[in-house]
Amino acid sequence: MSSPLDREPDARGVLPPDIHDYVATGAGDEETVAANRDAWGRWWLRPRVLTGVSDVDLTTTMLGTTVSSPVLVAPTGYQRQVHREGEVGTARAAAEAGALFVLSTRASCRLDDVAAVAGPWWLQVYVLRDRGITEEVVRRSVAAGARALVLTGDTPVVSTRSRRSSFDPAHAATMARDLTDVRDDSAYEQAPDVTYADIGWLREVSGGLPVVVKGVLRADDARACVAAGAAAVWVSNHGGRQLDGVVPTAVALPEVADAVGSDAEVFVDGGVRHGRDVVRALALGARGVGLGRAVLWALAADGSAGVADLLAAYEANLTETMQLVGARSPSGVTRDLVTWR
Amino acid sequence: MSSPLDREPDARGVLPPDIHDYVATGAGDEETVAANRDAWGRWWLRPRVLTGVSDVDLTTTMLGTTVSSPVLVAPTGYQRQVHREGEVGTARAAAEAGALFVLSTRASCRLDDVAAVAGPWWLQVYVLRDRGITEEVVRRSVAAGARALVLTGDTPVVSTRSRRSSFDPAHAATMARDLTDVRDDSAYEQAPDVTYADIGWLREVSGGLPVVVKGVLRADDARACVAAGAAAVWVSNHGGRQLDGVVPTAVALPEVADAVGSDAEVFVDGGVRHGRDVVRALALGARGVGLGRAVLWALAADGSAGVADLLAAYEANLTETMQLVGARSPSGVTRDLVTWR
Amino acid sequence: MSSPLDREPDARGVLPPDIHDYVATGAGDEETVAANRDAWGRWWLRPRVLTGVSDVDLTTTMLGTTVSSPVLVAPTGYQRQVHREGEVGTARAAAEAGALFVLSTRASCRLDDVAAVAGPWWLQVYVLRDRGITEEVVRRSVAAGARALVLTGDTPVVSTRSRRSSFDPAHAATMARDLTDVRDDSAYEQAPDVTYADIGWLREVSGGLPVVVKGVLRADDARACVAAGAAAVWVSNHGGRQLDGVVPTAVALPEVADAVGSDAEVFVDGGVRHGRDVVRALALGARGVGLGRAVLWALAADGSAGVADLLAAYEANLTETMQLVGARSPSGVTRDLVTWR
Amino acid sequence: MSSPLDREPDARGVLPPDIHDYVATGAGDEETVAANRDAWGRWWLRPRVLTGVSDVDLTTTMLGTTVSSPVLVAPTGYQRQVHREGEVGTARAAAEAGALFVLSTRASCRLDDVAAVAGPWWLQVYVLRDRGITEEVVRRSVAAGARALVLTGDTPVVSTRSRRSSFDPAHAATMARDLTDVRDDSAYEQAPDVTYADIGWLREVSGGLPVVVKGVLRADDARACVAAGAAAVWVSNHGGRQLDGVVPTAVALPEVADAVGSDAEVFVDGGVRHGRDVVRALALGARGVGLGRAVLWALAADGSAGVADLLAAYEANLTETMQLVGARSPSGVTRDLVTWR
Ligand SMILES: Cc1cc2nc3c(=O)[nH]c(=O)nc-3n(C[C@H](O)[C@H](O)[C@H](O)COP(=O)(O)O)c2cc1C
Ligand SMILES: Cc1cc2nc3c(=O)[nH]c(=O)nc-3n(C[C@H](O)[C@H](O)[C@H](O)COP(=O)(O)O)c2cc1C
Ligand SMILES: Cc1cc2nc3c(=O)[nH]c(=O)nc-3n(C[C@H](O)[C@H](O)[C@H](O)COP(=O)(O)O)c2cc1C
Ligand SMILES: Cc1cc2nc3c(=O)[nH]c(=O)nc-3n(C[C@H](O)[C@H](O)[C@H](O)COP(=O)(O)O)c2cc1C
Repeated sequence: MSSPLDREPDARGVLPPDIHDYVATGAGDEETVAANRDAWGRWWLRPRVLTGVSDVDLTTTMLGTTVSSPVLVAPTGYQRQVHREGEVGTARAAAEAGALFVLSTRASCRLDDVAAVAGPWWLQVYVLRDRGITEEVVRRSVAAGARALVLTGDTPVVSTRSRRSSFDPAHAATMARDLTDVRDDSAYEQAPDVTYADIGWLREVSGGLPVVVKGVLRADDARACVAAGAAAVWVSNHGGRQLDGVVPTAVALPEVADAVGSDAEVFVDGGVRHGRDVVRALALGARGVGLGRAVLWALAADGSAGVADLLAAYEANLTETMQLVGARSPSGVTRDLVTWR
Repeated sequence: MSSPLDREPDARGVLPPDIHDYVATGAGDEETVAANRDAWGRWWLRPRVLTGVSDVDLTTTMLGTTVSSPVLVAPTGYQRQVHREGEVGTARAAAEAGALFVLSTRASCRLDDVAAVAGPWWLQVYVLRDRGITEEVVRRSVAAGARALVLTGDTPVVSTRSRRSSFDPAHAATMARDLTDVRDDSAYEQAPDVTYADIGWLREVSGGLPVVVKGVLRADDARACVAAGAAAVWVSNHGGRQLDGVVPTAVALPEVADAVGSDAEVFVDGGVRHGRDVVRALALGARGVGLGRAVLWALAADGSAGVADLLAAYEANLTETMQLVGARSPSGVTRDLVTWR
Repeated sequence: MSSPLDREPDARGVLPPDIHDYVATGAGDEETVAANRDAWGRWWLRPRVLTGVSDVDLTTTMLGTTVSSPVLVAPTGYQRQVHREGEVGTARAAAEAGALFVLSTRASCRLDDVAAVAGPWWLQVYVLRDRGITEEVVRRSVAAGARALVLTGDTPVVSTRSRRSSFDPAHAATMARDLTDVRDDSAYEQAPDVTYADIGWLREVSGGLPVVVKGVLRADDARACVAAGAAAVWVSNHGGRQLDGVVPTAVALPEVADAVGSDAEVFVDGGVRHGRDVVRALALGARGVGLGRAVLWALAADGSAGVADLLAAYEANLTETMQLVGARSPSGVTRDLVTWR
Repeated sequence: MSSPLDREPDARGVLPPDIHDYVATGAGDEETVAANRDAWGRWWLRPRVLTGVSDVDLTTTMLGTTVSSPVLVAPTGYQRQVHREGEVGTARAAAEAGALFVLSTRASCRLDDVAAVAGPWWLQVYVLRDRGITEEVVRRSVAAGARALVLTGDTPVVSTRSRRSSFDPAHAATMARDLTDVRDDSAYEQAPDVTYADIGWLREVSGGLPVVVKGVLRADDARACVAAGAAAVWVSNHGGRQLDGVVPTAVALPEVADAVGSDAEVFVDGGVRHGRDVVRALALGARGVGLGRAVLWALAADGSAGVADLLAAYEANLTETMQLVGARSPSGVTRDLVTWR
């Protein structure tokens, strides 16, 4: 049964099994896919009473941009595979909601089409074997209005996934191909030699956009990112798709948040299922909380309208949850609102 | 199979599914409904031997009123939905047992009818959007004999419940409507702006009755309540009906009890299933232990007689449990009788 | 499928369901029946290698009596209900094995018949409402050769059991009735007023036999027993039959053993299933390890021969286990051989 | 469904049930068989990002011998029972892969046939009741090229296994019989009197080969082995086949590695299922990680080619895992890459 916060059952009804599995799958035994979800639930909420919660305001900022909610759209590739509207549909729904949209390097719509409908948006960067392509994608994105770059660090190689699918993502990522005339497929593969130095390189190439490193799961890495010039770190294990058996994001988050303190902003994603998980993430130090598969299921189920409904449902559910824990704004969601069991 | 301590199976046999579900349901994924129950069981009992337990006396006091047992009837609304005798039946059974009865603001019988049969009783207060109605309910209850006010703090808004039911509680709460001539439905909704200041307001309106804050799950909140004039705090998460994923009451209780020390009395409810849980609650610092759904199932199964049987079964079971842990009175149930596993 | 260490499946095949259930049942939700078993398994063994284990000797002493093994027969009543040979069959098998036998106050065979075949044995004492009967049972047992008294402290009242059985134990406990001419049934009920003072009383009545207090689950109680003159304490929760939700014996044992140190001997029972559990108990400070239901199932399956087979199987299994942990005698089973997980 | 890393399903299809069960079984309730596997998974990985992982090199050394990978073939007996190529097939596959092969005393092929095809290999030693046979096996192995001796310490007696099998291993271990003319079966049984002194004896008999003690699960034993002249210790519980309920190897490993520090090398086996477990083992201090049943299933499924495929699959999977945790060589896999949950 579908709920407004989880349209996976609806999506399963309309997607070819191969595409469904491509979205759902994780690496290895899919332990991390499950552990991500479970770990949020192991943070018990400790609501406050009698605080007066008539007006809750979810507005916040992310790297200086004002957004309507801490909930954001995490980058996921190949969105036209799940619905013909693809990234354009998702970007439009996010814009309507006033939520941040992150566009994947592996997008399947034309950059200009996405940018035309998008509200505030960031570009997710995979450094490709042919760095020239990466530079081109970055430059064009800057020109099209991207406000930050999200360098994904957890994918030096694309890992073997659990459920093999006949869906071959390589050729579905058409955005980058549209922007260059390189035809050699291997040029578009992940570069395995990405290092901290690439944070500076991306700042340069982009003319100074803030860089967020996505895939950070440790305090020392977080500090190293900041030292190398990152404006933010994004706690993620790629939704359990890259390396199974890693620490769940709800466990890694407080360690990372404590490590960077006020030196950088902190984002998180992985297994978030409702407003309670968002509140937990805020309490543990996140400024923004990403939705990956949830957006894809909603897009699959009902295109841009589906994503708009999803974001609206999150807003309502998060507002109610904030009232019930006794917080009126994201900054009012403090660490004492959760406890590990 | 029904047991004398749990008439849910019997109730299911007689209640319309909608009403059954309305009573049974919790918020979210109903994790807290289950966690409340489980958490009691995670406190292992550490019985004492050779203490001589010929005579066990369950008598105790609650805010100065002598009652026959630490077990009390928690406030639950709309009791006529589960049995035509409604709150009158429950109040009469509690009176016969010598147990404390707490009357909900959302009661469905006439106040005077309840007061006429009740033994010691308290009024549970929801501050409504139209505070005049709340004042009226409080004043009339004081006149009718209420000995304390229980301000429920965990319901600034009524949360979305898991099992949607076509039962609409709004119009079933007839007690308050009977006492006023306000017809506007929204006047009867929860006021989301309740704060600690309302503790003082309720003392004033009631001419000085002691105020108990219900829904407290944290040490700091408990101390704040006492500082604001509360005579007691009631550790509760509304039986898992308001916010899923919160700390179970059996976990929050010792923190709260330690925080208030002897400055206030402490009550608790949520997932209590037998005398062992009552003993655990007493050991962890509770003076009284509330039954919510258990009373409704008993009322549904057999009206006032069902509730009387339930309270008698608890008395017998609690007496046996006290003998087996080596305690002769509630005050003899000390902290060392339990240990967390 | 029956194993030599667990004849329950065989017993189920021959026992009337009522009697089977009477033996199998526990109090409450039978959580402690399960927890007793589980808790042993949570002590991981830490075997030593290269210690040379050609000859393992299981011989030990219990309150000065030499026995062939730390495994002993715990007291259980009404043994003629499970097999016509009753306590006589069990006592004979224990005598052949050189193992300690503990005779229940609720035995169903004649005292002299048991004593005639028994090897080293102790009398388990329930103080009855008519203390004269208790005195008589003790005195006659002393005369018949009992070497110690085991005062059961966990049964001031007989608790309500989970599976109700039409088997009424009251009249099946014929040993005590045979020794007196009291006909009043209530005289044979448990006395709920037993205290530490009764340790001294039993020493007196018995002319100075050592007293073991059975049912101890806490350090403070253990010390109090020793201070009151007990020669040993027996960590037990009555196989989960008296109070559900108590601390498992494998958890209580080290606390108790540490508390009494060398001032008293320590015994334990509850959920023991094989030599590994016996080794765990020895490592945690027990001198003797009792089998309750296991003996009844063996008796039911094959009378005295069944019990003999059971004790032989334990001896073989325990010997192998000792070799594999690298210990050659019970005193070589030290605390470091286990670790809690 | 078989995976390249686990050919058990294929093996089940071709093996007689008795042989399958002989390989699969563990001691007791097979808790340790399961716990070994589970315990690796309880070490969460903490990957590093942006480290540059273009070239991963798995090469390492074991007691001075260079091998292509930390993955090695643990000693298992009677390999001709699972496939006619037996130890010769396994040794050849290991040689092709450049991996270490450990030959069991209970091997079923002729020593010279194995040595003829083997790459780097060690002899696993069971001290037999007739020590002359052991000496002969050791001397002939040294002559044939064995580079170290692995003294198995966890098998002073062969334990009772859970699934009884009509397969009788005694006569299937023909290697040792081929090398001597002793016909008395009992001469080939395990000697239960093996002690630390036998480490020195084996060095002598072998003319100074390094000795590895296999079956160590404790810090104190590990230190005692080193003090007695061992060059390495091998953390193992014999794949859960000797004593059920012992500490899983993934739990014992860090304790042992910390205890020996740089005084000896540390190996481990038990329940390893993929490259992630190998990385965990390296992080916890192991230099080499053994595969027991996995090799037998591969051998059963496809003879020498099956084992070669298995080792190749491990190399690929381990390489990918190393890239995803951000390590380029076994020595780069540091303790901080894992955390216990
Ligand atoms: C189908 C799919 C494609 C993804 N593509 C990308 C991508 O191109 N770039 C990236 O950084 N993360 C990608 N991710 C990871 C997401 O950004 C996000 O980290 C993850 O989905 C969060 O977990 P959740 O799905 O449980 O919400 C992808 C995830 C999925 C499910
Ligand atoms: C059907 C139902 C109605 C309730 N109505 C009220 C109410 O009107 N006021 C209130 O403070 N609590 C109300 N509660 C919460 C109970 O007072 C109590 O906190 C809870 O039921 C305890 O958990 P238990 O049902 O597991 O015993 C209600 C609970 C139920 C199940
Ligand atoms: C059927 C039955 C009768 C028992 N009768 C007695 C008894 O008369 N006196 C006593 O001290 N304990 C009695 N016990 C408790 C045992 O002595 C022992 O503590 C318990 O059975 C140990 O747990 P186990 O059955 O898991 O081994 C009885 C237990 C059973 C199962
Ligand atoms: C069928 C079988 C035979 C074995 N034979 C031996 C042996 O002869 N010598 C030895 O030291 N270990 C022996 N072992 C234990 C292995 O060396 C190794 O410790 C264990 O299999 C590792 O666990 P795994 O099977 O989970 O990988 C045997 C294991 C199996 C499954």
